[in-house]
This record gives sequence, structure tokens and C-alpha cells, in this order.
Amino acid sequence: MSWIEDPEFTPDHPFGPQTLPYGVLGTAAGPTVAVRVGRHAIPLRGIADELGPRLSELVGGSSLDPLLAAGRPAWRELRERLLEVVHAERAPAGAELLRTDWHTQLLPFTVSDFADFYSSKHHAENVGRIFRREAEPLLSNWTHLPVAYHGRSGTVCVSGTDVTRPNGQRRVSGDPKPVFGPTRRLDFEAEVGFVCGGEPTDRVGTEDFAEHVLGAVLVNDWSARDIQAWEYQPLGPFLAKSFATSISGWITPLEALEHARVPTTGDTDGVQDYLVEQQPWGLDLRLEVRCNDTLLSGPPFAEMHWSPAQQLAHMTVNGSPVRPGDLFASGTVSGPNPDQRGCLLELTWGGSEPVTLEDGEQRTFLQDGDRVLLSATAPGEHGSVVGLGNVAGTILPAVRR
Amino acid sequence: MSWIEDPEFTPDHPFGPQTLPYGVLGTAAGPTVAVRVGRHAIPLRGIADELGPRLSELVGGSSLDPLLAAGRPAWRELRERLLEVVHAERAPAGAELLRTDWHTQLLPFTVSDFADFYSSKHHAENVGRIFRREAEPLLSNWTHLPVAYHGRSGTVCVSGTDVTRPNGQRRVSGDPKPVFGPTRRLDFEAEVGFVCGGEPTDRVGTEDFAEHVLGAVLVNDWSARDIQAWEYQPLGPFLAKSFATSISGWITPLEALEHARVPTTGDTDGVQDYLVEQQPWGLDLRLEVRCNDTLLSGPPFAEMHWSPAQQLAHMTVNGSPVRPGDLFASGTVSGPNPDQRGCLLELTWGGSEPVTLEDGEQRTFLQDGDRVLLSATAPGEHGSVVGLGNVAGTILPAVRR
Repeated sequence: MSWIEDPEFTPDHPFGPQTLPYGVLGTAAGPTVAVRVGRHAIPLRGIADELGPRLSELVGGSSLDPLLAAGRPAWRELRERLLEVVHAERAPAGAELLRTDWHTQLLPFTVSDFADFYSSKHHAENVGRIFRREAEPLLSNWTHLPVAYHGRSGTVCVSGTDVTRPNGQRRVSGDPKPVFGPTRRLDFEAEVGFVCGGEPTDRVGTEDFAEHVLGAVLVNDWSARDIQAWEYQPLGPFLAKSFATSISGWITPLEALEHARVPTTGDTDGVQDYLVEQQPWGLDLRLEVRCNDTLLSGPPFAEMHWSPAQQLAHMTVNGSPVRPGDLFASGTVSGPNPDQRGCLLELTWGGSEPVTLEDGEQRTFLQDGDRVLLSATAPGEHGSVVGLGNVAGTILPAVRR
Repeated sequence: MSWIEDPEFTPDHPFGPQTLPYGVLGTAAGPTVAVRVGRHAIPLRGIADELGPRLSELVGGSSLDPLLAAGRPAWRELRERLLEVVHAERAPAGAELLRTDWHTQLLPFTVSDFADFYSSKHHAENVGRIFRREAEPLLSNWTHLPVAYHGRSGTVCVSGTDVTRPNGQRRVSGDPKPVFGPTRRLDFEAEVGFVCGGEPTDRVGTEDFAEHVLGAVLVNDWSARDIQAWEYQPLGPFLAKSFATSISGWITPLEALEHARVPTTGDTDGVQDYLVEQQPWGLDLRLEVRCNDTLLSGPPFAEMHWSPAQQLAHMTVNGSPVRPGDLFASGTVSGPNPDQRGCLLELTWGGSEPVTLEDGEQRTFLQDGDRVLLSATAPGEHGSVVGLGNVAGTILPAVRR
């Protein structure tokens, strides 16, 4: 029996003792690092005596930045201590339980660099078919390297942050000159992100992935498809993505995902040595995408072609060190089936096949007021279920110039 | 007569009293913010009494971060006070003169986001002709918006930092499968960068450029052309650029460039309103590119199609705020003449026409041990000359895996 009385702090709930994700909550006493237990969270500054001075220094403040900088040995030790704390019969002195739904979730760390991959073959093929009808859906480099681009770290925001519809240039069919105004093709992208830390290190081998990654978040890489189509050549997406990228406020530690590890679907025959995995880091994460409470799709992360370990190996193979606070995301997660597609571009096949919501309304792309919710679970030990943090965001109307 | 006895602290030298750039020097007492005067620099913590408590708090430390956050009113006040200090007859109490060549230059601020444009028409046309021989050299979006991509902020480094030749995937002619190893087409790109600060602000109008930009640096956006050619579609350059981006350690304040303002060469007929300039922010900066002391080219920044004010307006028009520490660069500066091209890709026309150095050696791309030096001047008031900080970097051999 644990001292934590919470009906959802059980192994069959996503935030039971098998998960223990980290986040930062706004409290009357200011932002505080906390660990989630069911519907509640324990502020870590309150249990400093349990954690000891060294760990308390890392998690007793208002941000996960010190913990990220400390690296894997500290992450392991913290998780072990917290497992003891939550399984104790009595509450440790000073332990508080905050209701997560009564407190604001804050961005839990300072994002250093944000890179976004493009590692679902189903997604890349669908996008290729939609945009380049005449050509091969996959470009020739795609199966040899995890394609990626750098995004804007300054506009990464936490779940719950409203997203204002961006203005920008887009082309109206037939007219060679663009028009300016609110995007008409605002989309979400359901992705999984990885939060990095430890000593800045380059050329991280696939086998060293866990040394540099604290855990996983869900990511919504909001995208303005009409702005993107006009601007993206030859240097890639810029304003079509940079206006907002939402991440979950809870970071699920890699340890909690140990039982979700699966081989990726990618064929490694003939890929460069630095991309070969000895122990697979594919993950059986089952995503769900909702718009205004209608379940739109269930993207399977297990279907990814490239794993996060391969992505990190690629990102650092040229000598660029991974730093604490670096965030990299998978790219849109899509499965082979139509109801497993991770963005509206694919779900509506470029806007030509609207989806119908439960209230009978139809959507090709997002409308003002729409609320998008991403969630995910993974298999845990002994049949338990491990949760990733939700990512929610509501669309606000464009600002008029 | 000034108290500063330095033969280069005169209006006909680039770092005379008309320039006064900011940087951070390593000293025995630790890193210190300083202003450059000729061959010397004055540590600003030494003249706290002259600057007063408010300004001293901003520039009395080891980084320009607090100054960048403070914004334009503080920048204006600091420059006015420093003009008084350097024109005084007697040295203020505590004022020290450090020899710049005896002290290490440090990265003067924390880079938040780094975006890189592609705003020289001559450069974009040359690249188009080299890479897409059959097609129109400029893509259709190019004259309607300043094309750009996000780069890696974590690998922005200060002048003098050695650059290790990156490893990566490249294609060998005819073979559909890539090989892995050191880049064989390592290049420089001569660019001008702008360092941002003040309150985070979105939708910055072209007329508000100076409110958000402290000053200018030179930038060498090192590029691995073979890695780039293989990886860049469809999301833009990634590992081909992310291994290193060098900037000058001295930031030349915008005030010092007031007399260098010129209209850009871009035709604004028909461009979107938010990109129209009332007062031009083109700049008559005259760059010089040297490799191993051989002058390779003299790129004219006055030939740019898009100005930095247009770039900042574009970057923020979608609602992305510009933050203190944001750095954006112009893209390679190239003029209409062959000896005005800002990278080896253009100077050697894709490696087909080697350049000859003064020692008789030939180069298509950079070799290990090569030293690249960028410098620039601009016209100042009354015929004076304003300097930008140099950017130097030496190529080290690739790391063997």
C-alpha cells in the first residue's frame, strides 16, 4: 500500500507508479518541479530530505534544466529514489499532493535547439503522393538517412497554450503572385519528441542513446500547409512551422518505456554503420489524435522507419554536440492504414476528402476554435500501461494587421 | 585629444571612435564585456562610475546577454556615454586598455535561435545555375519573400575557433548508394549577421528594425557541399551546415552603420506591404574574403536584394517573436562580378574552375590547414571608415570514427 490515495495511481492507469513523469507546475509559491502520480503531482522541493542534497539541488527549483545538465547517472538515481518514495507506506515529511487539473502546466525546460525529423515512411510516402503526383513518392536519400530540419526553439510551448492562426504568403491557384493573409490550411502533426541532457557530446552511437536522453514527450508540430507549399523550396519549411510547436508538459522517463522497445520497421541492410542499432530503440507508443473530442486517428509509433537512437546518431555524426535542452522530434507519425495518419493533410488527402466530426461538422483543415488533443500510451511491465503527457491546443483567430 | 593613445584609434581606421563595437574578452580576471578602441579594448566593468549603476549592471559582467535584453533605449544611452568616455581628455578612474591581440575573444552572447537567409540574387542565381542546369536559376518564390531556414544555434562559435572537417554521407557519381566519410567539398560562405534584443516582439515592421537589433557581425556559414547535395531535399540543409557557424567577436552597433545605409537592389513593385521599406536598410558593407592570405573576393553587401529589415519583418510576420540573442544572417553575399562571389562553390563554379592562391597552390574546395578570413568595412561620417569584426577559422582534419 502506498501513501498516495489516488484511484488512478495504479499500474492499469497511464500515470501509475510504473510511469512517474517529470514536469513543472505553477503553484502559489511559484513554478515547481514535480513528479506525476495519477491525478496528482508531488512537488520535489517538498521531499528534499528524501532525495538528499545532491538530487534536491537538481530538482528543487522551477525548471528541469539542472536535472537535464546532470545526465544519466543522476536521472537513474532520481528515479530509484522516487520509486521508493511512491511505494512507501507513509508520506515522507513535507510531501504534498497537488491536483494536476488545478495547476497550470509550464514549459518544463529551456529548449536549446529543436530539430524535427521525417521518419515515418507511411507519412513521407503519403506526402510525396499528395504533393508530387508524377514522381516517386520517396526521394532517393530517404531510406539512407533520417531526413530532418532545424525548427525554431523560441516558439516551442507547453500543452494548453493557445495557437494563433498565422498570417503568411500563399498562392491562389493559377495566380503566379502570392496573396497575404491567414493560412487556410492549418494542420497538426502528431509526433513524439525526445529531451536531451548530459555532457555535450558529438558522434553519439546508437547504443549510447539512453545516456543522452531523459525521456519522451508528445509533440504537435503545427503546420500551415499553404504557407509551406509556397516557401519551402529550396531551404525547407520556415514560417509554416515556426509560429508554434506544442509539447506535453510531462516528460516520461526512458526507463518507463523499457518494455515498449521494439525493432523499427526500417530495413538496415546497406545503411551506414553509424545508423545500425544493436538493441532496437523503436517504441510501441500508441498515439491518439482528437479534434473537438472526435477521435481522428491512432498513429502507431512502432511503425516508424527510423528510431530516435538512429536520429540522435545522425544528428551528431558530423561533430555537432547534443546539448542539455536539445529537443528532437520524430516527424509526423503515420501508420499503413487511413485511420492511422497523423495529420489532416494525409487524413483528408490534401484537403480533397473531408473528415466528419461527431457533431456532424466537416473539416479539411483546422478552423478557429478547434481544439486538438494528442495522447499516447505504451505497454509497461506485467501488463501495465505507461502514459505520455497529453498535448492540447486551441486555435485562435489570426491577428489582423 | 583623447586619452586613448593608439595609432589606430582614428576615424580613418576601422576601429576608430566612429565604430566602438562590443565584445567579450578573456582576461586573467575572467571574461569581460569590452568596447574596442583601435588595437585596444576597454573593459566596461572598469568604468562603472562613468556608466552609472543601471548601465553597469548591463555591461559589467561576462556576457552581452543583459544588454541585449535591455533593448534600444539602453543601447542608445550606452553608446552616448561611451562616445563621451573615449573623447575625454583624461582617462576615467579605473579605465584599462587591453591589447586585443593579447586576449582571447569569446562568444559575446548566448545565441537563442539562428536563422539564415538566402538574400543575394547573384548568389541564388549562381547556385541555381550550378545545381539545376536545365531549369530557371531562381525559383518562383524567391522575388516574393526572403527565403530562409533555421540553423543550429549550439554550434555558432566565435572567430578564431578551429573548424573540424565534418564526416557525413555523400554520393559518388553514378552510385545510387551513398558513402560515408569526410566531406570533400568543404566551403565557406561570407555573410553578414544581425544580433537581436529588446522585448520579445512579433510582426516587427521594417521601420522598427533598429528597435530590435543591437548591431552587425560577420558570419562564416561553413558548408559541406557534397553532404548538402545529398541530404537537402525536401526539408533543407541540416548536417551540411550544423557542424559550425563562425561569427565575429565584435558587434558593430547599428548607429555606426547609419552612413552606410543604401536602398537595396530589390524591386519592391508588387511585394507584400509588410516587406516594403520606407527608409532603406540596405547597407554598403564591403566584404573581403581571404584564404591563406590570398584575397579571393570582395562581396558587396550593397548588392543584396533583401535588406535585414525586410528579413526581420518576414521572420516575425507569422507571429513568431524575435527574442534577445536571436541571430539572423543574410546568406552568402555575392556581387555581379566573378571576383565578388562569396563562396568557393561559386568562385570555382561547382569545383570545375579552381582558384589559384598566392603560393601557387590551387583550390576547388577547402583543404585541411586552410585558414579563411572574412573582414569588412563601411563608409562612416565625414569620410571615416567603419569596421566590422573579422571572422577567422582554420580547418582541422576530420575525426576518424
